[in-house]
Amino acid sequence: MKQQRFTITSFSNPKVKWVSGLKEKRNRDEEKKFFIEGYREIKKAITGNQKSPIPCLPVQITSVFISPECFLGENEEELISSLRCPIYELPRKIFEKISYRDRPDGLIAVAETPDVNVPWKNIQKIETNPILIIEGVEKPGNLGTILRTAEGAGVRLVIVTDPRIDLFNPNVVRASTGTIFTLPVYIGDLEQVLTEFKNLGYKRYAVTPEGKTLYSSVDMKEKSVFLFGSEQYGLSPLAKELSDTTLFLPMLGEADSLNLAMSCGIVLYESIRQRSK
Amino acid sequence: MKQQRFTITSFSNPKVKWVSGLKEKRNRDEEKKFFIEGYREIKKAITGNQKSPIPCLPVQITSVFISPECFLGENEEELISSLRCPIYELPRKIFEKISYRDRPDGLIAVAETPDVNVPWKNIQKIETNPILIIEGVEKPGNLGTILRTAEGAGVRLVIVTDPRIDLFNPNVVRASTGTIFTLPVYIGDLEQVLTEFKNLGYKRYAVTPEGKTLYSSVDMKEKSVFLFGSEQYGLSPLAKELSDTTLFLPMLGEADSLNLAMSCGIVLYESIRQRSK
Repeated sequence: MKQQRFTITSFSNPKVKWVSGLKEKRNRDEEKKFFIEGYREIKKAITGNQKSPIPCLPVQITSVFISPECFLGENEEELISSLRCPIYELPRKIFEKISYRDRPDGLIAVAETPDVNVPWKNIQKIETNPILIIEGVEKPGNLGTILRTAEGAGVRLVIVTDPRIDLFNPNVVRASTGTIFTLPVYIGDLEQVLTEFKNLGYKRYAVTPEGKTLYSSVDMKEKSVFLFGSEQYGLSPLAKELSDTTLFLPMLGEADSLNLAMSCGIVLYESIRQRSK
Repeated sequence: MKQQRFTITSFSNPKVKWVSGLKEKRNRDEEKKFFIEGYREIKKAITGNQKSPIPCLPVQITSVFISPECFLGENEEELISSLRCPIYELPRKIFEKISYRDRPDGLIAVAETPDVNVPWKNIQKIETNPILIIEGVEKPGNLGTILRTAEGAGVRLVIVTDPRIDLFNPNVVRASTGTIFTLPVYIGDLEQVLTEFKNLGYKRYAVTPEGKTLYSSVDMKEKSVFLFGSEQYGLSPLAKELSDTTLFLPMLGEADSLNLAMSCGIVLYESIRQRSK
């Protein structure tokens, strides 16, 4: 199939309004589409992660908006020519209106919103831990940072329960630096998720400021699920009840807690440290 | 001295414009003032940290803007009545215009910009490590998160070198949750700072994606200085040259780095873990 290229020269072109509209959740829900901005992010969306034992979110790109004036000198043309979908070329001024970034790099892909239900039939294939569960996350940037960190820490699966945000908010994609496409991330029901992992022989650790056990004192080489609560409300009573152990991180100053993404990163890197010994 | 209270009812009141202007660096520089928003943050600015062996930034509050309609039910009146400076009371609508937050809690204090030069004569009094040095930080929110995390990790001193941001940007204060006032934080010259700590017998660790030594393999119970570079450019060649050892964090996925604040938090919590053994 030959690639179709179109040029847009007017702010009032309906495609401009349409793609801008995908910044709003209600439009993403209605169109069942979301947008992926940035060379690195689009590349990861296309490539996914073939080595992942659990499939990553399947991404089907349906159109791409480009502004060569904004390109940073990556292999943008190669990336674009690999796509079999309509390409819309825009001048910088119009592209900046669509963009979610301060310094756009001239690439926005629109993709179909994938199915986010946990693919349980694949879960038993996971060979290593840990697994990360995030309950009720409220800030897109936090979720993105958690995904980026979890990917670095070798996490094989992230499940989000009762999110107060849309998984496909552009800030999640951005803060994740595209790892939302290379690390399996799904939305599940808390009770079901914790029950399934119990049955699969995982230890379930609830990390909370009121935890009873020092996080670094438990054996993270065992199959482990780490559970973190929302920024404002922390973990639900149900989450703590369905966990085997509650963990805390030391707080040596006057402040009473760390931010959510930070707590995740510290626990996950402790798990790397223990496993690498 | 009796406390003076004034009521502001108009958007066009020059005080409203003046305090709003402090969101801009050039106005903060010109007025030598900055603003501190939020009950928790103002409380920390007033209290400081008397237990700190190195003095925290001295904060002198010169005026306070309040909107009782926005109060969240902390001891706001007690806090306000403890202050010996003019108090300006505003309706919610005007307060929201001044505020830096989505959901303001009705309290903004204006303070004199303190001296940020490293108080070297006090440095030899530090009894424990680690010390944190951040070079060229670019994002106010990152610096704030670093301070909050460092305070939780029991860090006694943070020095910022060549910052590309203003230490008194409202986003630094906010993301720090006020720990910028309870943890000594100063601006210093990189070469001087690293030389001074060498002379004081500290090991200087440069944490960088190109580091040679696994971060968790070094003995952090020794007197240690940890050095982190900017989000975009990392550490300067000088910083690496003046360090004793370069450290890396494992990256097990496809992503090539962690965010700056996250790297700091992971290294600092490893230092807590080692010291508590």
